[in-house]
Amino acid sequence: MKLLEDRILQDGTVLPNNILKVDNFLNHQIDPQLMLAMGRDFANHFADKGINKILTIEISGIAVAMAAAIYLNVPLVFAKKTASVTLAADLYTAKVTSYTKKTEYTIRVDKKFFTANDNVLIIDDFLATGEALRGMTSICQQAGAKIVGFGIAIEKVFQNGGDYFRKLGYDVYSQAMIENFVNNTVKFKDR
Amino acid sequence: MKLLEDRILQDGTVLPNNILKVDNFLNHQIDPQLMLAMGRDFANHFADKGINKILTIEISGIAVAMAAAIYLNVPLVFAKKTASVTLAADLYTAKVTSYTKKTEYTIRVDKKFFTANDNVLIIDDFLATGEALRGMTSICQQAGAKIVGFGIAIEKVFQNGGDYFRKLGYDVYSQAMIENFVNNTVKFKDR
Repeated sequence: MKLLEDRILQDGTVLPNNILKVDNFLNHQIDPQLMLAMGRDFANHFADKGINKILTIEISGIAVAMAAAIYLNVPLVFAKKTASVTLAADLYTAKVTSYTKKTEYTIRVDKKFFTANDNVLIIDDFLATGEALRGMTSICQQAGAKIVGFGIAIEKVFQNGGDYFRKLGYDVYSQAMIENFVNNTVKFKDR
Repeated sequence: MKLLEDRILQDGTVLPNNILKVDNFLNHQIDPQLMLAMGRDFANHFADKGINKILTIEISGIAVAMAAAIYLNVPLVFAKKTASVTLAADLYTAKVTSYTKKTEYTIRVDKKFFTANDNVLIIDDFLATGEALRGMTSICQQAGAKIVGFGIAIEKVFQNGGDYFRKLGYDVYSQAMIENFVNNTVKFKDR
């Protein structure tokens, strides 16, 4: 998606350890018009797939997932990383390792939100090694829900998470595919 | 806002300790069409105030704040509750006590996102004792930014946070104002 790639080139910063900082439009400050364009793009790609629910993970997946939910006109559920007094006891859980934060955490989804009748689009802002997607995949599998595909804003291709899910037969649609970082600049795949 | 009040009556659950559970449309599962309606309503209320930025706090403020950002056509910044390798060193910070989680945490905003030229709308999903709003207010004050008002989805009037800010002269606009809970049912102000 050229709009997102151009924005990454314009406003993104490459940090050490292959980290791309996109805090001025995606995960600290959010550009709502860009989110809407991305949501429309996801909805176009996954149109006519019978999607009835979106699953994402807090925190920075929420804005782009909501934009997709607007255009697909389906509810959005975000998996929670922390316990809460308002969270039910009857939960699907999965363990996730954070690449940028070097920590392991548990994600939680109330069981009432996913059943074997659901066709789920999983959305996240980044796909690197794929740990967060594995956690969300596990939650859908526990519910018996069908995963229609993965909608990703930015995929770091060289970290192989996308490859892992594509080999399993999933439709992994990434709006910006970063092949690698060369001298602190972003090189996109096929561009 | 009748649409939100009706939804609370239909889908909300009153838990012990004056906690309202709205996990099926606001803070675990999100109804995107409801969010858009709420965003439009905020934009109408705060139209012509020169707002150029929205500030909210992760996590459950993000969806409704993004809806408001769409209609006001301004960027949205969410204050972060955790440190991160992508977060700059040059931050505004404030301490916040969570009413539901009984913990204190620090919120962080990159200094580059707020200056004395900004007219800020602060948005959050809940207003109870006002701790989160006090933290966000502090961040705007540190930046010298003007706070145009507060846009709140659900205010628990009996916990007096709204009263505190109104007495200071702020425009606190709450879409659903809960006067109290009687026998586990919600009683709205003026309804």
